[in-house]
Amino acid sequence: MPSILNFSDISQSDWNALVDRAVAHYRRGKQWTDVAKGKSIGLVFMNSSLRTRTSMELAAAQLGAHVTTLVSGEGVWGFEWTKGAVMDGDTAEHITEAVGVLSRYYDALGIRAFASKTDYEADKSDAKVRMFADIATVPVINLESAWYHPCQALADAAAIRATFETRKTNKFVLSWAYHPRALPMAVPNSALLMAAHEGFDVTVASPETHTLDPDLVAQARNIAASNGGSVTESSDLHAAADGAVVVYAKAWGGRAQYDDPAREQAQREANRNWRITEDVMRNTADGKFMHCLPVRRNVIVDDAVIDGPSAIHLLQAEMRLHGQKALLEKMWGV
Amino acid sequence: MPSILNFSDISQSDWNALVDRAVAHYRRGKQWTDVAKGKSIGLVFMNSSLRTRTSMELAAAQLGAHVTTLVSGEGVWGFEWTKGAVMDGDTAEHITEAVGVLSRYYDALGIRAFASKTDYEADKSDAKVRMFADIATVPVINLESAWYHPCQALADAAAIRATFETRKTNKFVLSWAYHPRALPMAVPNSALLMAAHEGFDVTVASPETHTLDPDLVAQARNIAASNGGSVTESSDLHAAADGAVVVYAKAWGGRAQYDDPAREQAQREANRNWRITEDVMRNTADGKFMHCLPVRRNVIVDDAVIDGPSAIHLLQAEMRLHGQKALLEKMWGV
Amino acid sequence: MPSILNFSDISQSDWNALVDRAVAHYRRGKQWTDVAKGKSIGLVFMNSSLRTRTSMELAAAQLGAHVTTLVSGEGVWGFEWTKGAVMDGDTAEHITEAVGVLSRYYDALGIRAFASKTDYEADKSDAKVRMFADIATVPVINLESAWYHPCQALADAAAIRATFETRKTNKFVLSWAYHPRALPMAVPNSALLMAAHEGFDVTVASPETHTLDPDLVAQARNIAASNGGSVTESSDLHAAADGAVVVYAKAWGGRAQYDDPAREQAQREANRNWRITEDVMRNTADGKFMHCLPVRRNVIVDDAVIDGPSAIHLLQAEMRLHGQKALLEKMWGV
Repeated sequence: MPSILNFSDISQSDWNALVDRAVAHYRRGKQWTDVAKGKSIGLVFMNSSLRTRTSMELAAAQLGAHVTTLVSGEGVWGFEWTKGAVMDGDTAEHITEAVGVLSRYYDALGIRAFASKTDYEADKSDAKVRMFADIATVPVINLESAWYHPCQALADAAAIRATFETRKTNKFVLSWAYHPRALPMAVPNSALLMAAHEGFDVTVASPETHTLDPDLVAQARNIAASNGGSVTESSDLHAAADGAVVVYAKAWGGRAQYDDPAREQAQREANRNWRITEDVMRNTADGKFMHCLPVRRNVIVDDAVIDGPSAIHLLQAEMRLHGQKALLEKMWGV
Repeated sequence: MPSILNFSDISQSDWNALVDRAVAHYRRGKQWTDVAKGKSIGLVFMNSSLRTRTSMELAAAQLGAHVTTLVSGEGVWGFEWTKGAVMDGDTAEHITEAVGVLSRYYDALGIRAFASKTDYEADKSDAKVRMFADIATVPVINLESAWYHPCQALADAAAIRATFETRKTNKFVLSWAYHPRALPMAVPNSALLMAAHEGFDVTVASPETHTLDPDLVAQARNIAASNGGSVTESSDLHAAADGAVVVYAKAWGGRAQYDDPAREQAQREANRNWRITEDVMRNTADGKFMHCLPVRRNVIVDDAVIDGPSAIHLLQAEMRLHGQKALLEKMWGV
Repeated sequence: MPSILNFSDISQSDWNALVDRAVAHYRRGKQWTDVAKGKSIGLVFMNSSLRTRTSMELAAAQLGAHVTTLVSGEGVWGFEWTKGAVMDGDTAEHITEAVGVLSRYYDALGIRAFASKTDYEADKSDAKVRMFADIATVPVINLESAWYHPCQALADAAAIRATFETRKTNKFVLSWAYHPRALPMAVPNSALLMAAHEGFDVTVASPETHTLDPDLVAQARNIAASNGGSVTESSDLHAAADGAVVVYAKAWGGRAQYDDPAREQAQREANRNWRITEDVMRNTADGKFMHCLPVRRNVIVDDAVIDGPSAIHLLQAEMRLHGQKALLEKMWGV
């Protein structure tokens, strides 16, 4: 099995099998085996993590594999990512050597490298994570890149399949929400593609200043169509929520931040009240509230919603463990 | 078994059994088993640690369990602890979600969260650690909170039982010592309760400005009485040491720091020479020097004492491993 | 087996056996056993690490041992190293207690503590690492000290033995290279001693301002002589490279930095172009390029060299794992 960097690396049938396998692991409960004994994985985090780190460590450990977590800047040399760089500045080690060495130690690698938020095309092409995977001589798992978070999407789909016996409607709303900072688009991109793979009729609700990348939306539309679903966009959250079975909330920065961060901030601040409230949820068809976490309470979502019965964010987080067990099993063929 | 947050969570008979079990582990030496294979524990540190982290990791590993250590601010999101907070500031994740998620991954959690030193009632009620345990759906071990350090107390009692075949006297002195900073009271509180559980005649020696909380002292007095001991207070270290079998040294800040830190500092500086010297130890009945570590040499205690034959601080530290093995065994029923 | 702090701790026959054992591990590939089950090692890093940390963790894990990594200042108390210090400043824990405690938890310890670069005699005597080992009651492995990096040297020798079936010449060049900072001498010292142990005719090429310590060179000369080799010094890189089978590049600060850092920097900057280029390598007898990593590309070595067929730096890094497995096996007698 090759690296898992994004959804193009996974066919629809592999996707279905992985999600079902994740749900099966969840239904079986915490299970410790030795099927991957003698395997090891090295996780490289360029950014903070709680769920991804702990769930990946446990996923590997529960399969009997060894895992090491490295956090950039915390006892590890700073990495240089520019090809051909004359390294007379702050960075001490080129990613070429770092990944070259780790490839010789571990049987798989994971990499988390968030968006630059300064170079849109580099972020859209997932330049860093692709570079990492190109250098590696072992399979690489994307632990959230500039553009994608496939492990989160896998867990989200598993949480949805485990939650709904039957759906009242097929409507899935991916809603933007206000956040004091302009966050990356990896999670909304992946949530949209996930919902498309799951065959939902997806509505992406956001201010017009904060729509997702048109190519990404077009890609999702194609995937949705081939699974009996659809993708539409809306700038009216309340109307979008009408009749939905899922409201998936996520903050992200507008594309304007790449050439005019001040304008993006003004556009974002103008939508400070775009927040998932009980009012929004009442509009749904007994819809579930989803979020990838970490979530800013009373900014992204009101306490009344996230502490209420519609919220399945903790199930999503729990599914990270089970989804990644499924991924590692497939990657290592165990 | 429920969470172990403080001494109210442990009956006298459980206490006795745990201490004896710790000593038994110590006498048996380093022993690796698989009795807790398939169990896992996640340790969350809001503050630094050497002994607690390594001894808890080894305790779990020696029982065959998996352990993960998370350090706040080191590759992990900053946590918000205020209920109902509108999270538009620096903190990215509410402790509600963090603990909710970790509860779904691990079979037990540990939490270290030192005193605020700004809100006496919150510290006295151990608000943070109680909140953590209230959210958790798995048992929680207190790895040192604002008010208690039960794992240290367990190790201290085991070190005492392993050291004394018979005691010349029953006198235990808990002595304040000068420190350049106003430290929390968790360790002295726990050492006092430990000595009470062990049935000592305890003298708490401190400047009058640095007495322990009266309710805590009263609680210790009751426990001591029911075990044949007693608790008295003294502001004369040399007199207190007279005839003691143990001098347990510890620095802590005065209660004045909560409303007037400058006054507390002045009171503390006025007692710069309150330090465990050879002179103090000569007054004892061949007494042992104890300290929980880390210790400031030549500030808390002279080199001549801590490097001499009366010091059992390394045995205390060693007992952390054995005490926590006993605790995990009891917690998991293995 | 005692601690492994430097080359005086290893006889020539032990050296040969360790290197051969490392090559054997390499040829056998990643192998996981339980020969060291029930053993544990604690690694203490006062400085950053990628290879040393991951390769030592994996070496221990592949033998079935438990390993803990501690990084100074990252969730661990700051250590005081001065004997007799009155600890009323920033450091919270004396190394005496830290090592005393860890000795009671682990079956071996590792310590990385780079040069002070302010006290030449202390660095030359490896004062910190010797102090650490003197306090420890279990064997200690030097993970790079002020003066030596024996684990790197062991891996380097294994990489050389695995690379050369036969050598065209016996010439080994250890070359200084420019670096924006004045780096410690541990690696060049160890590379020189390693090459001497391997019986090479070594040329140390460096500006006259950046020669290695005369006592260290004399020590290497004696070891080389007893193994049929020799040590000479040169200030002409191109001439030195002539006919070499190995060019081992490394930056290090001049001895002048200890009393006059500004002068050292000026001397170093005057040699900004002292770099391993294709021109240098063309002078060799089909020589191999070696470096311990991390390496500053296009400062120490041109991309064309390190990305070309002569570079064996990744093999050196890979051998760290196998060399340290051999070391742990010998240390624990397993």
